[in-house]
Amino acid sequence: MELQFLGTGAGVPAKQRNVTSIALKLLDERNEVWLFDCGEGTQQQILHTTIRPRKIAKIFVTHLHGDHILGLPGLISSRSFQGGSDQLEIYGPKGIKEYIELTLRISDTHLKYPIKFIEIDKPGLIFDDKTFSVYCDYLDHRIECFGYRVVEKDYPGELNVQKLREEQIMPGPIYKKIKDGEMVTLLDGRVINGKDYLGPNIKGRIVTILGDTRTHPNCYTLAEDADCLVHESTFSASEGKLARNYYHSTSLQAATVAKKANVKQLYLTHISARYLGRQALELQHEAQTVFKSSTIVKDFDVFDIPLKK
Amino acid sequence: MELQFLGTGAGVPAKQRNVTSIALKLLDERNEVWLFDCGEGTQQQILHTTIRPRKIAKIFVTHLHGDHILGLPGLISSRSFQGGSDQLEIYGPKGIKEYIELTLRISDTHLKYPIKFIEIDKPGLIFDDKTFSVYCDYLDHRIECFGYRVVEKDYPGELNVQKLREEQIMPGPIYKKIKDGEMVTLLDGRVINGKDYLGPNIKGRIVTILGDTRTHPNCYTLAEDADCLVHESTFSASEGKLARNYYHSTSLQAATVAKKANVKQLYLTHISARYLGRQALELQHEAQTVFKSSTIVKDFDVFDIPLKK
Repeated sequence: MELQFLGTGAGVPAKQRNVTSIALKLLDERNEVWLFDCGEGTQQQILHTTIRPRKIAKIFVTHLHGDHILGLPGLISSRSFQGGSDQLEIYGPKGIKEYIELTLRISDTHLKYPIKFIEIDKPGLIFDDKTFSVYCDYLDHRIECFGYRVVEKDYPGELNVQKLREEQIMPGPIYKKIKDGEMVTLLDGRVINGKDYLGPNIKGRIVTILGDTRTHPNCYTLAEDADCLVHESTFSASEGKLARNYYHSTSLQAATVAKKANVKQLYLTHISARYLGRQALELQHEAQTVFKSSTIVKDFDVFDIPLKK
Repeated sequence: MELQFLGTGAGVPAKQRNVTSIALKLLDERNEVWLFDCGEGTQQQILHTTIRPRKIAKIFVTHLHGDHILGLPGLISSRSFQGGSDQLEIYGPKGIKEYIELTLRISDTHLKYPIKFIEIDKPGLIFDDKTFSVYCDYLDHRIECFGYRVVEKDYPGELNVQKLREEQIMPGPIYKKIKDGEMVTLLDGRVINGKDYLGPNIKGRIVTILGDTRTHPNCYTLAEDADCLVHESTFSASEGKLARNYYHSTSLQAATVAKKANVKQLYLTHISARYLGRQALELQHEAQTVFKSSTIVKDFDVFDIPLKK
């Protein structure tokens, strides 16, 4: 599981930072990539990564401001042109479907795959299958804006081979059933519960990606105990008033959310173009005064999200 | 007057070539830039040039395929964000207004300047003022597609100072009136016609920019005697069938138009991503076998369009 930042700027593209898009790479877990927002030029950014557009299975849109959505029609078209044939799911606020359908119609674009739109009218659980769940909730931005909490299901614990051997249960196809936690009848007639031969569950990971927002109680609940939190940091600590006026956050506010929510790692993104080079690094230093594991990200940065040991 | 190519690829963006956009820089002539098409990422390309978005006064759209229009909403928004306050005129096929207005509405974008849409329902003269005219006509593409012919008005000839001196008409404020071709009464009572003291008119320039197209009679009429012709060359000379099937042109077809239309200079653009490096240069060589002044262009290339001497 990796997180790759495709665009880390705020509002308008700059030479140093493109507008927002974040890829959650779930290649080992699902052979899929999930995208969070898709500002203009995201498909061009992807050309400089190892991401294959046809692997993008879901796109989660935080809100409909241009710097978060204008890259969608192009990426959707190129995904088709480059051989994508599997359904694409797009989650986001009401309006996203109208925007994309009209753009595809006007531009006479015919996709080789279906799109399933999930326009969110009620926050909460919006996706759930055997290995992952996704929750969302409202944030506090100028327009309707969501934060997403991606929860990986726990992995079963490791097989306790020593205990099995001690009880004369020898290796063979039944180990698979035991590992799956099933009830198993042995050749000698004994009936055992696979679960009794497994170590403790390995906790799945939690990744929280928030859209543009002022600090809001939902930030804490979405981020609670997350392995990593992606939080906007449009402004520096000294620009609290500006941040409030524009419905954004400062570095310190982001760090405070990370600390109170007990996350492991904070990534600061959506950086205003006013902060260049060392000035941008200053936002990281500010955040670290409150929450040590704070990192300001750049376009194309990739971060591994390890399983807890 | 300069032509700058902001994107020279076909269909989808590639590392080497972004999708189509062409800037006609009329800074000396009008202190304006006119844009022809605006594929996704055009505003990012502009960041690497000296072009100021607020100087973009007119955008001419050849057709509504995504690789020619998806950069419009972002550029339009950034033009406002960066202080543009003058009206922007957008010319193009029916549908362009609906696309832009819906995108601005969905993304809650409020511009600080008005947009005037000119949806073309009848080809011919679409713009005319003291210094420039623009004509357009249909091409032969899969959807409605236009070519544009930009005609600069002639400049008055140079003042014949020698003739003035010979006739004892001495320098002073009246020289301005004579230069403007007015009737002037001299101090000694003589009445002269300024036009009699001017050299021959200096011909204005003609720039023809065609959208995606197969060869069509309108290509010739749009390009007739142009100082420069921008023509798509999606495919190499050997791929005539492919070009025809996809409603595009080959290098040779573009060169043939340039030759028959008696243009001065041909720029080949909209190059398929299959042609890289030397292969792309091969398209230029092919074109040069028919029309010597053929140049294949790259992203960011700038070409001066000189006045005829």
